[in-house]
Amino acid sequence: MNERPISRFPVPALESLPDDVRARIVEVQEKSGFVPNVFLALAHRPDEFRAFFAYHDALMLKPSGLTKGDKEMIVVATSGANDCLYCVVAHGALLRIYEKKPLVADQVAVNYRKADISERQKAMLAFAMKVCNDSAAVVDADFQALRKHGFSDEDIWDIAGITALFALSNRMANFTAMRPNDEFYLMGRVPKGDKAAKAG
Amino acid sequence: MNERPISRFPVPALESLPDDVRARIVEVQEKSGFVPNVFLALAHRPDEFRAFFAYHDALMLKPSGLTKGDKEMIVVATSGANDCLYCVVAHGALLRIYEKKPLVADQVAVNYRKADISERQKAMLAFAMKVCNDSAAVVDADFQALRKHGFSDEDIWDIAGITALFALSNRMANFTAMRPNDEFYLMGRVPKGDKAAKAG
Amino acid sequence: MNERPISRFPVPALESLPDDVRARIVEVQEKSGFVPNVFLALAHRPDEFRAFFAYHDALMLKPSGLTKGDKEMIVVATSGANDCLYCVVAHGALLRIYEKKPLVADQVAVNYRKADISERQKAMLAFAMKVCNDSAAVVDADFQALRKHGFSDEDIWDIAGITALFALSNRMANFTAMRPNDEFYLMGRVPKGDKAAKAG
Amino acid sequence: MNERPISRFPVPALESLPDDVRARIVEVQEKSGFVPNVFLALAHRPDEFRAFFAYHDALMLKPSGLTKGDKEMIVVATSGANDCLYCVVAHGALLRIYEKKPLVADQVAVNYRKADISERQKAMLAFAMKVCNDSAAVVDADFQALRKHGFSDEDIWDIAGITALFALSNRMANFTAMRPNDEFYLMGRVPKGDKAAKAG
Amino acid sequence: MNERPISRFPVPALESLPDDVRARIVEVQEKSGFVPNVFLALAHRPDEFRAFFAYHDALMLKPSGLTKGDKEMIVVATSGANDCLYCVVAHGALLRIYEKKPLVADQVAVNYRKADISERQKAMLAFAMKVCNDSAAVVDADFQALRKHGFSDEDIWDIAGITALFALSNRMANFTAMRPNDEFYLMGRVPKGDKAAKAG
Amino acid sequence: MNERPISRFPVPALESLPDDVRARIVEVQEKSGFVPNVFLALAHRPDEFRAFFAYHDALMLKPSGLTKGDKEMIVVATSGANDCLYCVVAHGALLRIYEKKPLVADQVAVNYRKADISERQKAMLAFAMKVCNDSAAVVDADFQALRKHGFSDEDIWDIAGITALFALSNRMANFTAMRPNDEFYLMGRVPKGDKAAKAG
Repeated sequence: MNERPISRFPVPALESLPDDVRARIVEVQEKSGFVPNVFLALAHRPDEFRAFFAYHDALMLKPSGLTKGDKEMIVVATSGANDCLYCVVAHGALLRIYEKKPLVADQVAVNYRKADISERQKAMLAFAMKVCNDSAAVVDADFQALRKHGFSDEDIWDIAGITALFALSNRMANFTAMRPNDEFYLMGRVPKGDKAAKAG
Repeated sequence: MNERPISRFPVPALESLPDDVRARIVEVQEKSGFVPNVFLALAHRPDEFRAFFAYHDALMLKPSGLTKGDKEMIVVATSGANDCLYCVVAHGALLRIYEKKPLVADQVAVNYRKADISERQKAMLAFAMKVCNDSAAVVDADFQALRKHGFSDEDIWDIAGITALFALSNRMANFTAMRPNDEFYLMGRVPKGDKAAKAG
Repeated sequence: MNERPISRFPVPALESLPDDVRARIVEVQEKSGFVPNVFLALAHRPDEFRAFFAYHDALMLKPSGLTKGDKEMIVVATSGANDCLYCVVAHGALLRIYEKKPLVADQVAVNYRKADISERQKAMLAFAMKVCNDSAAVVDADFQALRKHGFSDEDIWDIAGITALFALSNRMANFTAMRPNDEFYLMGRVPKGDKAAKAG
Repeated sequence: MNERPISRFPVPALESLPDDVRARIVEVQEKSGFVPNVFLALAHRPDEFRAFFAYHDALMLKPSGLTKGDKEMIVVATSGANDCLYCVVAHGALLRIYEKKPLVADQVAVNYRKADISERQKAMLAFAMKVCNDSAAVVDADFQALRKHGFSDEDIWDIAGITALFALSNRMANFTAMRPNDEFYLMGRVPKGDKAAKAG
Repeated sequence: MNERPISRFPVPALESLPDDVRARIVEVQEKSGFVPNVFLALAHRPDEFRAFFAYHDALMLKPSGLTKGDKEMIVVATSGANDCLYCVVAHGALLRIYEKKPLVADQVAVNYRKADISERQKAMLAFAMKVCNDSAAVVDADFQALRKHGFSDEDIWDIAGITALFALSNRMANFTAMRPNDEFYLMGRVPKGDKAAKAG
Repeated sequence: MNERPISRFPVPALESLPDDVRARIVEVQEKSGFVPNVFLALAHRPDEFRAFFAYHDALMLKPSGLTKGDKEMIVVATSGANDCLYCVVAHGALLRIYEKKPLVADQVAVNYRKADISERQKAMLAFAMKVCNDSAAVVDADFQALRKHGFSDEDIWDIAGITALFALSNRMANFTAMRPNDEFYLMGRVPKGDKAAKAG
């Protein structure tokens, strides 16, 4: 009943880490006010840490037909489907902040069909759920359905790519029993919670 | 993208309701400071309203080997498994308040195996998940496993009964697209949130 | 290989029961010629007994756009999907009697698509199966499909409500290993079997 | 709402059939008093008819460590799992007759764990369900579990072989929408129902 | 880590077999250059052997609106869905040979939607997958969809019949842990591999 | 029926690619004799290309308690479970080559329980399948089971990490309809096929 540790695996001391890994962690700490545990848990393997965040940045930070809120919405829906506590909680915080909607993360994590989101976003999440749960069944008609909502083919890659990246991330968080930082649970639920929006 | 209504069905005006139904609603409003939408949505059918809350009270309010927190934990886990937004959000609030743990509801809703709860509570929820998802497979060995954790047979009925009641409740909430009150999302996440603990 | 008992839990003596509970049991016994075991098994908890039968009566006995046969058909299909022996056997008897069709209960319990029922009833059961198995996926289009078959919104509530009530009932019967009375198996299969039609 | 035909495919006239096929049908008619529809539906393809009944006889009629009742129990459990109306109803009749238990077929079709059968029979059906639903996962430990109940390896082949044959049969009956004869529904439920025990 | 035997059950010596069974085995050996293990494993039960190959020949060798390649494609897709190693490997060889496409078997075994096959063949396999995985849900609309691709009702029986036969065959191969002959793995992948096309 | 293209998305010309991406592609081409299509399909997004191969190299090329064959075995089993044609075919080739077993890839892709691999490898794949299909259910007992087979905690991270990476990779390949190069299908099936072992 004691609090679980950050990870089933050892968490390295900051000073023991390679410079670039430590620099990234220091940077997120300065922006967010705390170090999201995913950085500490994955730092156990610096090469995988670097690759994961490079992949993350390539999809989540680049300009896109999807807004930052759209992207986090995909992460939260995927993580809900995969029962991944870390990602539901941490990315739920980001989703609330980007969308400026304190309720949206819980809605999307439980059932996106009942969320206060646009029809376009529901179509986006329906496709993400197919990539998440049965990617072998994706067919051309799925692309057509998204184009009707104004998504370009590059946007569709973004939807699928983010879903695929969190297929990886959810499994790593579940496998390592990664613990969400307590701070995430409340972020974006009350007006003052915006400062950590860059944490992941 | 507009906010969804409280229910797919008409919500009766308080003054149009039978006295006992209205009295119950007024009572919860006075305790909680607002009327949980489940009362308004189910009031569309007063006889079912009365039966539902009678069943609810028979299980949730009576003395038991389960604490109030244990009971709400079962509700939240079941509602998570059934992707029921109303019940995850509303009973998540009660769970946080009863357990005095601001993080526990999100943990249990996503993956009880990773929650900061006791081994006894994990065994309780494992059984609730079996009743929820595959009740035909319940066998005597499931009872034995619970008895090892100190649960009496009456406690086991409580676990199964609450799970069964929310099998009903989750389906009604999903079917009517019952909307959780905004108030629930934040209750019990911050120290001052305790006053609505009697709402359901 | 001996016959199983009525319930995994103690079955109270009639004379030990509260008056109203005993009165209800005596009433059904007089109508049916025997006491359906659900009354004995649930009487272990009088408050839950009262709430369950109040809920049952509110849905099953009230006037509706659904016939008594329609309602029992929903119960049997739901109970088949949940592998609930008690409810398939007991409500199968009622279904045969109300519909005056000795074959229909076995058909609906195994595969409603192959049953000798109307297209309207098949649409009703298809919706009941969605509420039973995946209620989170119910969307407005499901309501539209039912309206095309002439169901009002109140009828649709009845369909979903009965399905939800037996989501509860099936789990209680499975969990308590409730034993169907031998009498039910043959009722309504031969012309003389009508007398117990009020039993549940 | 009219009664469904015997099969989605044409049913041949007896006099148009090859002699051996007609002879088999006449033989079962004399024994049972009627022609089970499976004979008429499959006679549409005489070569497949011959092979099916040869396979059936090789497993169902030969001496075995399984009784005739054991064998029909496997058929009914498998057919219940595959939602096959024809086989649940027709073989349910045979099961009642062979076991001389009017209730056992409904019990096994819905949930064998709750049936009035021996622990040995429950172990037999648990293995049949694994072969039915997930045969790729069968491992040596499954054989060991059966040997503890006194099953020989040849008995185990019989269990799996019957399950496999009805994997075929259930799919043919479902695909052709094969209609069970009305006679089967009541056979073995009342003392006089024994004469058709050889029908299939 | 040693090679698994041909079957979990004893494999009879050729000279101990009934004449007709031995003759069939000698015939396939002469055509293929080796004895496919299915003949040896099933010869443990000569009556079932005879019935199985009679059923096989009735469906696989008779004239049909399906080509030999179409038929083997159904077998491979079904066997992939059932995770049956023997049938994927042995019938994959035949599929490559009949279709003269060295890549098609691996494609169909993994995901027919991505295979280099015609739209007609994809519709055929979509129906086969429904018969394989959820035959109780087959409805008239499934027949209409196939007729649009030019399949006759007899062709549709062939598709369903082959799928049903390999529902049996896959379960027997999985249950007996039937080992594919090493020869099959390479057949039809290189120009010289054609000679064993009649093996099964 | 024409051959499918390499990807649903445009495939860039080599000369249009950033130097580092082109260099990686030229390198694999020189080693393998051809360019595996995954390099061309992912080069549509150079940043994701770089991150993917960095992640790949971090797990697949680094020293480990797992052999190269073990690692590819995990990839093939995961890709089989996700019905990913590209990865089953391409990594099946590598698995055959590293293990020097021409049959092992087909065995592992269809059903690892029937493969000619060690008990240690079967335990490794059983865990990989849990991370693949139900990572939320991973518990400490899963780690204990692997330690009994001599896996260190770092080895366990490798198993889960590779499974997680191919959860991503399988979804990208399925979503883009990535086409396996024809060369992969035959590699490692015949003695001369070793040269492309570095391709991925």
